[in-house]
Amino acid sequence: MHQEFALGRFGLVSGLDLPDATLAYRTYGKLNEAGDNCVLLPSYYTGTHASYEPWIGPGRMLDPERWFVVAVNMFGNGLSTSPSNASPGIRGTDFPDVDIADNVIAHHRLLTALGVRHIRMVAGWSMGALQAYEWAVRYPEMVYGILPIAGAARCSPHNFVFLEGVKSALAADQAYDGGRYSSPPVRGLRAFGTVYAGWAYSQEFFRDGIYRELGYRDVDHVLDDWADDHKHMDANNLLTVLGTWQRADVGSPARGGFETALGRIRARCIVMPGTSDLYFPAADSRLEADLIAGAEFRPLQSNLGHVAGRPGIRAAESEQIADAMRALLGG
Amino acid sequence: MHQEFALGRFGLVSGLDLPDATLAYRTYGKLNEAGDNCVLLPSYYTGTHASYEPWIGPGRMLDPERWFVVAVNMFGNGLSTSPSNASPGIRGTDFPDVDIADNVIAHHRLLTALGVRHIRMVAGWSMGALQAYEWAVRYPEMVYGILPIAGAARCSPHNFVFLEGVKSALAADQAYDGGRYSSPPVRGLRAFGTVYAGWAYSQEFFRDGIYRELGYRDVDHVLDDWADDHKHMDANNLLTVLGTWQRADVGSPARGGFETALGRIRARCIVMPGTSDLYFPAADSRLEADLIAGAEFRPLQSNLGHVAGRPGIRAAESEQIADAMRALLGG
Repeated sequence: MHQEFALGRFGLVSGLDLPDATLAYRTYGKLNEAGDNCVLLPSYYTGTHASYEPWIGPGRMLDPERWFVVAVNMFGNGLSTSPSNASPGIRGTDFPDVDIADNVIAHHRLLTALGVRHIRMVAGWSMGALQAYEWAVRYPEMVYGILPIAGAARCSPHNFVFLEGVKSALAADQAYDGGRYSSPPVRGLRAFGTVYAGWAYSQEFFRDGIYRELGYRDVDHVLDDWADDHKHMDANNLLTVLGTWQRADVGSPARGGFETALGRIRARCIVMPGTSDLYFPAADSRLEADLIAGAEFRPLQSNLGHVAGRPGIRAAESEQIADAMRALLGG
Repeated sequence: MHQEFALGRFGLVSGLDLPDATLAYRTYGKLNEAGDNCVLLPSYYTGTHASYEPWIGPGRMLDPERWFVVAVNMFGNGLSTSPSNASPGIRGTDFPDVDIADNVIAHHRLLTALGVRHIRMVAGWSMGALQAYEWAVRYPEMVYGILPIAGAARCSPHNFVFLEGVKSALAADQAYDGGRYSSPPVRGLRAFGTVYAGWAYSQEFFRDGIYRELGYRDVDHVLDDWADDHKHMDANNLLTVLGTWQRADVGSPARGGFETALGRIRARCIVMPGTSDLYFPAADSRLEADLIAGAEFRPLQSNLGHVAGRPGIRAAESEQIADAMRALLGG
């Protein structure tokens, strides 16, 4: 269940546009009179607004009695305007490139329309973190705090290479046909999920059988689950959002580069990489935190790998995230 | 240029056999009268006997004036008996599973035929390290020292998962056709190389532009090189040796398991994982070294990732390997 916000013709950073763009989102709680109790949760790769629900509710990290929580879907995720649901002219492989900035600008229009004046916190996991940084750089006066979890302010070259790998696995399937498939490229989608599984978790996750804590019987079960899960996804949606991810970089030349861009941030930042993340390594987050005035580097201690901060993943990780949110939002 | 050793009908651990098996190898230097100056170098994934040549020669790590160096090719690598060159009954996808133990048993037959009585050192990088451990467990009285570099005594579950990923990328190409391709599955082979590129190096390798030291202009150049390089390889050969790798484990149940097997080692071991290796992590090697009597854990300090110990890769890495060889072989 979600709401929709019509953006009309939406101009993109690239100069192209989405002729009839829509954002899918959901709100929880009420905006206060001052318009400053909003917490924004931008969606992550293969996630939706609903993925954040483990964080939201009475007695959870974000109580709708106090906060106006807005969970919003990225373009391309299948709910907001995407290759799979766009108007005929930009369906499928004709869908234009969409950047992190495009998503953030669209979400800003939504929040403004909802009456939000200040955002108490943008919190996001993985690609949600990419958007949190863009918010803090683009709207420094509007954003009071950000909590980027298992993410970064740009896609690192290694991260780019890993994504080229999963992309090439999908495109190796002739049934993909450059995005013009009539039936899903099942073999390629399964390969995409299989390659991804090795990156999503840490080496220890597999070595020490930690997958059992997530309900997996064995390694084959992990692999089957990832392959099967991706089999049902739309290939062009997956690759559109993957492109958004690969191009992510708050430090566009127009902004004077990376350091200058991060120097514009006024929000209070708690930078929270996972300590065993293979593609958003904590070492990179440390370097980024050093470029943000007053940022706190607070690694999420976890042996789960990248999935460490995924909403609802495990109690020990949730507690660390809840602590960070309390620090940003007040007790 | 290499020599060949005919094994005749070679029985495999699985119970199947290679009806007319051949080992390709090359020797450097002369065996001494006592038959105990042999240094064995087993080949690694996508490598051959010739890959070790940067280590061999006057003034290099292994001087043929002193050592009888034998560099030998694994089954499946395209030179020793492989899906691509086997007799018709076991060609291509009909090639039987070959294990690390099978390779080591075959190499033992070769060395025995050459008159070798004791091996001063088995040194190997990556899959060469898998074979070095198997030598030390299987022939404890014959092997005086081993130097496993960027490898392990078994394929870890995470390593298995990473290999499932590259395999699935290749098999996603319909042209692969379950191994019955008539022309090479180029798209799948390129995807295989592209996925692999993300695993071969460290995050820092890409972040800090260290690829320039290896002659790459940029990240795209790395990706193109890996894709192009694999395009020319035989898919069934690649998958045969990948299976050998995935099944690697010195601790078979018949041996009483992993700890018991490692406890049989009498050779002097210098265990040398790369400090930034993503799929043979140093933490795993540390655990293995603790199970081997008298083993020295001596990490190869490098920001290159898995490729750290590849022969000839960089002077700083070669020096550390040369030091370890001196420690094992004497000054």
